[in-house]
Amino acid sequence: MTATLAQCRDRDASDPLRMLRELFAVPPGVIYLDGNSLGVMPKSAPARVAQAVSEEWGTGLIRSWNTAGWFEMPRRLGDKLATLVGAGPGEVVCTDGTSINLFKVLSAALSMAASNASPRRTVVSERSNFPTDLYIAESLCRERGGRLVLVDDPSGIAGTLNEETAVLLLTHVNYRTGAMHDMHALTRAAHDAGALVVWDLAHSAGAVEVDLPGADADFAVGCGYKYLNGGPGAPAFVWVHPRHVARFVQPLSGWFGHEAPFAFDPAYRPAAGISRYLCGTQPVLAMTALECGLDTLLAAQAAGGMRALRAKSLALTDLFIELVETRCGAQGLTLVTPREHARRGSQVCLARSDGAYAIVQALIARGVIGDFRAPDILRFGFAPLYLGFEDVWNAVEHLREVLATAEWKRPEFDRRQAVT
Amino acid sequence: MTATLAQCRDRDASDPLRMLRELFAVPPGVIYLDGNSLGVMPKSAPARVAQAVSEEWGTGLIRSWNTAGWFEMPRRLGDKLATLVGAGPGEVVCTDGTSINLFKVLSAALSMAASNASPRRTVVSERSNFPTDLYIAESLCRERGGRLVLVDDPSGIAGTLNEETAVLLLTHVNYRTGAMHDMHALTRAAHDAGALVVWDLAHSAGAVEVDLPGADADFAVGCGYKYLNGGPGAPAFVWVHPRHVARFVQPLSGWFGHEAPFAFDPAYRPAAGISRYLCGTQPVLAMTALECGLDTLLAAQAAGGMRALRAKSLALTDLFIELVETRCGAQGLTLVTPREHARRGSQVCLARSDGAYAIVQALIARGVIGDFRAPDILRFGFAPLYLGFEDVWNAVEHLREVLATAEWKRPEFDRRQAVT
Repeated sequence: MTATLAQCRDRDASDPLRMLRELFAVPPGVIYLDGNSLGVMPKSAPARVAQAVSEEWGTGLIRSWNTAGWFEMPRRLGDKLATLVGAGPGEVVCTDGTSINLFKVLSAALSMAASNASPRRTVVSERSNFPTDLYIAESLCRERGGRLVLVDDPSGIAGTLNEETAVLLLTHVNYRTGAMHDMHALTRAAHDAGALVVWDLAHSAGAVEVDLPGADADFAVGCGYKYLNGGPGAPAFVWVHPRHVARFVQPLSGWFGHEAPFAFDPAYRPAAGISRYLCGTQPVLAMTALECGLDTLLAAQAAGGMRALRAKSLALTDLFIELVETRCGAQGLTLVTPREHARRGSQVCLARSDGAYAIVQALIARGVIGDFRAPDILRFGFAPLYLGFEDVWNAVEHLREVLATAEWKRPEFDRRQAVT
Repeated sequence: MTATLAQCRDRDASDPLRMLRELFAVPPGVIYLDGNSLGVMPKSAPARVAQAVSEEWGTGLIRSWNTAGWFEMPRRLGDKLATLVGAGPGEVVCTDGTSINLFKVLSAALSMAASNASPRRTVVSERSNFPTDLYIAESLCRERGGRLVLVDDPSGIAGTLNEETAVLLLTHVNYRTGAMHDMHALTRAAHDAGALVVWDLAHSAGAVEVDLPGADADFAVGCGYKYLNGGPGAPAFVWVHPRHVARFVQPLSGWFGHEAPFAFDPAYRPAAGISRYLCGTQPVLAMTALECGLDTLLAAQAAGGMRALRAKSLALTDLFIELVETRCGAQGLTLVTPREHARRGSQVCLARSDGAYAIVQALIARGVIGDFRAPDILRFGFAPLYLGFEDVWNAVEHLREVLATAEWKRPEFDRRQAVT
């Protein structure tokens, strides 16, 4: 029997995570299903960023490097992030962007693999991986004389690993389909083949349970502005397994990764731990907003943390799938995201052979913000921190109306914009 | 005859740049001589950043990529920056950090030099260059099988260039001494030797006149948080001469440097122009503050622009040197910065065989904020946008008193902090 609006409201009323929604400034009239692209602003961010601007920068000026803790931000935020991915304190830094951090860890992994008794030079990834990951891998393969091997069918990944494989590079949850890999199994398969594994957690951190050490992963990077709610273009993060961290000096070896940055030594001496994965001065105002975002996830700890958030995320996406199928069943939508919980991230993607772009625009005009991914994907992210069951019901009702009335065929919904 | 306080006040009163000080929130009681480390906050920054947080992020959310112009920020800010260094529109992007941008351009320069008929592999720089530049050069030399050649005496740089030299890498104004290189002459010397030149403008952009195309330079990078007043850890900038920009794909080839980032093409196709020097999503809040800083420099255009700012900067540093020598003459201070205008940046450094650290701390306690650079340097930056002649008089009077009364010997001024 299909869920009713009343039942959705009941589920919200009894949801122990419900009060976390109060931490966020969800705009009135908006049902935000794009937290996988840019998370909603925490209510704490405006005041906290204003303080960083006016007090720390404006009044403190250069003194704030000491008095406002700017120097420790990458590590302080990294320690907070670590709790979301199973890592320990001192294992993560928040810094730079995801692509740049990927360049650092992939360089490290390739160097370690090239220094083996029998050097390995291929990077295995998926053709459907987020393109920037492939571009960085392509660049490093060109530099190092390696080769990028792209797999089309995810089920073929393990079988592609062999004695030439240096690194398996995967994004845990696919940006386009929402399909999630089995991190434990694929890490094991890579290690069995003698390869190292780099995980991109862009669509995982803050959205699904991740246990990097438990999976025995080697390296990970991830994004600060999606489910971590860190603000537009927020700095990213990087994790290196403690067994590897001292083995390699990553090539973006700027002064903030030096053992003693303020000794101004002309020769580079890498910092002992994860700090060597820092490069230069970090954008303090952006880091400040990111910390507000991380704190929203830490606020969920008392209500069950990532385990509870994941359970709610699955309940939300289950409900969305059920309602779309029962209420928009005859409208040519195909479910792209796996039904199986273990293979689903925190988003649901639907394909439609025509009109996908315009349908998304029509929904946005109604305040239901998802996004379109070429050529035919309607993508909806479900951030369990600020979405409720009634939101899901209402979103599907809007989708039903947009399709049933052919509202999406209005000409204004087919004008493409530069970015979606 | 030594300048008097009254004369300093007269000079402020007749200074056509004086009103620009009103653009800045100089904290009460502070004489800020550290704009070469972190520029003063423009008064426009708090409201503009608050708007970016609450309206663009908070309300606009993902839609702001289009509606708030986020996507164009690196180019829009780059075009503003270009006017300060003699470059044209479309030649500069503001993005990432200085060290990361240096990695990009030095990679490009080394690749171009290695592809010559007779490959060149050495990078020539100064041992006294800002260390992060040397660390990045060291990293790329290790990766490419090159060699970093460090020169001790600046007058020996041109003579060090030879048929092995791939790149001459120099910071235009030395961070420690304030000495400025002759960009035109050294660029010519490098080209005569068949080498390329990378200029780091960290202590130049917004402080001294720079004409990159006029000097026929090849590549340049620079910092956003010093004389550009862009806020703590503000994004940096990168310029590539149009003759080189299409010749090389820089290795940090993330999706924002792709010809069509939102086509999500698994293969990298570099953007046509300077946009290929972008990597990933930029920290929008930090970019917003940087734009406020850039706008303070553009506001000087009507009053003579960089030429007028440079003239005032030299007048300020001339006055500081004169007053230190006449009023603190017997106190063991040695002038480190060149007296010759053509060889001086916008800062004055003094050396003292003992107590340099404590003297700087004693001055900071009095509100005169400069900084210490090991082992014996008192460093004072003079940002002509917000400093006046009376500030210089007062700063020297504080220095005189700190020295004459031995105030600096108080124990509280010898406690070292993590960062200065």
